[in-house]
Amino acid sequence: MVKGNQSFIFNAGIFILSTSTVVGPFEGKGPLSGDFDIIHDDIWMNQDSFEKAEKIMLEEAALRTIEKAGIKKEEINLFISGDLLSQIISSNFAARTIGSPYIGIYSACSGSMESLLLAALIMEGNDIPYILTGTSSHNASAEKQFRYPTEYGSQKPPTAQWTVTGAGTCLLTKMFQGPKITSATIGKIVDMGVCDPFNMGSAMAPAAADTLYTHFQDLGITPDYYDIIATGDLGNVGHKICKDLLKDKGLEMPDNIFTDCGMLIYGDNQNVQAGGSGCACSAVVTFGHFLNRMNRKEIKRILVVATGALHSPLSYQQKESIPGIAHGVAIEM
Amino acid sequence: MVKGNQSFIFNAGIFILSTSTVVGPFEGKGPLSGDFDIIHDDIWMNQDSFEKAEKIMLEEAALRTIEKAGIKKEEINLFISGDLLSQIISSNFAARTIGSPYIGIYSACSGSMESLLLAALIMEGNDIPYILTGTSSHNASAEKQFRYPTEYGSQKPPTAQWTVTGAGTCLLTKMFQGPKITSATIGKIVDMGVCDPFNMGSAMAPAAADTLYTHFQDLGITPDYYDIIATGDLGNVGHKICKDLLKDKGLEMPDNIFTDCGMLIYGDNQNVQAGGSGCACSAVVTFGHFLNRMNRKEIKRILVVATGALHSPLSYQQKESIPGIAHGVAIEM
Repeated sequence: MVKGNQSFIFNAGIFILSTSTVVGPFEGKGPLSGDFDIIHDDIWMNQDSFEKAEKIMLEEAALRTIEKAGIKKEEINLFISGDLLSQIISSNFAARTIGSPYIGIYSACSGSMESLLLAALIMEGNDIPYILTGTSSHNASAEKQFRYPTEYGSQKPPTAQWTVTGAGTCLLTKMFQGPKITSATIGKIVDMGVCDPFNMGSAMAPAAADTLYTHFQDLGITPDYYDIIATGDLGNVGHKICKDLLKDKGLEMPDNIFTDCGMLIYGDNQNVQAGGSGCACSAVVTFGHFLNRMNRKEIKRILVVATGALHSPLSYQQKESIPGIAHGVAIEM
Repeated sequence: MVKGNQSFIFNAGIFILSTSTVVGPFEGKGPLSGDFDIIHDDIWMNQDSFEKAEKIMLEEAALRTIEKAGIKKEEINLFISGDLLSQIISSNFAARTIGSPYIGIYSACSGSMESLLLAALIMEGNDIPYILTGTSSHNASAEKQFRYPTEYGSQKPPTAQWTVTGAGTCLLTKMFQGPKITSATIGKIVDMGVCDPFNMGSAMAPAAADTLYTHFQDLGITPDYYDIIATGDLGNVGHKICKDLLKDKGLEMPDNIFTDCGMLIYGDNQNVQAGGSGCACSAVVTFGHFLNRMNRKEIKRILVVATGALHSPLSYQQKESIPGIAHGVAIEM
């Protein structure tokens, strides 16, 4: 059911049957390491390129999610996936391995929630047994593409973020009970003119604030409806801006509820400047950490607003600013 | 309603309210020039880069489609778009201009039908008034990204294709009658090991054959159900392969029905080797030429199977083959 301008309430009973998360060694040393299914001890993952390593993680997460659900990969009716790499090659090549009907998406780091809300929107009105969604990112493939190869050892400003090496996937069904997808808010592009790819939190914060504000307006609820409200990868710079923007609009976000996946995934000792980022950031924190907490009955209702910076290396070179977007999905037990 | 393994029949009454097409000067000299709304006389389109020119075409097509429908752009509930450029910047920046909720997709040249079938799948079960879908490509931006800058003047083999400069958009609604989206078949990745980006028709032909075969199996109909069955951009090399593959499976495609958008858009005198390609190829031929023919009552039922080559310049350099995909949508008066 459409609610307000940009939101949907799902009435068909769309449940998360299983999820899986795969991360690299650095993420495995962080505070959430106990929440991940597979932790690689080498960023190459036995591949000869970082791009192929990223694909391997997405394949592993997808196959593990299918295995956890107790079904065969031939039963997957649709795989929806996107990633950061040009022409989303991690997703395309993983989809070749999975072999199911496939929809490729691109919305940068908001891909985790764009794919999840698309799956829910499709499942709401169509009797599809199983839809698998997913996303991945790799620190070295993303740094090489968007900034400098990691081997250059270039220094970064405090506003920069660390792209998460990982992949997270989620299997939706209407046939079995589980954590339920209850609503979603589709984001609009918000571009405040930030041009600095080392300050993506600031570029994406206004989009996150816009989607959050719209979500509460559309649904007629207040932030305390949720136990956790998490932005995707604003990091501590963008998260503070987002909180201030919402306060200016009269929406106070309580500190004990409002957090950011990019602020949770790494420890204070991990020297990641403003925090984590990348497609996998919100995917592994949501599909690993938050869902584990829901399954342990520590929290009941979460809203994840994944944030994406929709520029490219070329648009940056052509002096364009960074368009931000944020897509929100609510999951309830 | 799900039909068979990969297909859907739409029962909600999803209609095309308006479409619009924008092309470059070379396409404007082709045999379909009378079917396009805007023909630019310069490939720069008053911009300082080919990428910005591509974005301008997509914006023009979107705004013209909205104008033709007699609505305001603020009434668009969702814009779904993708293009060939890394991080789909044409779509992202056009979405910034349009200002509606936005879902970015990537499926290379099959983006025209991936966005259209996604819109129909979403509209089937949700009461959304208006969804706008679209895609764009620009010969010079695509050549520069995937092959060589056009300024190099490099020679091409006869299997190469010419990326269409253009953009096409389509506005769906359940509120007014018009050409109806009746069914769709979502493609799987098919990769037969072709690695040559100058022979994409061959790389994509098996995917097109797979989706076509599945469509007829799933729906229990034969090719003569349709007046036109068009692949997206196989060109004359890939189209022949596709036809042969289907014949091997016992499915004879009649010559008077089975065609390819990439074979229709340019004239024999235009020296485009195997034909047209690019996201805009199937978009402008379908949303311009085919729909004009439907509106003139010359044809009643069409099936467009848009084809995508899901490699990237990087995956090619890393010696990966080209994964193909094809998404089919049926439109009936």
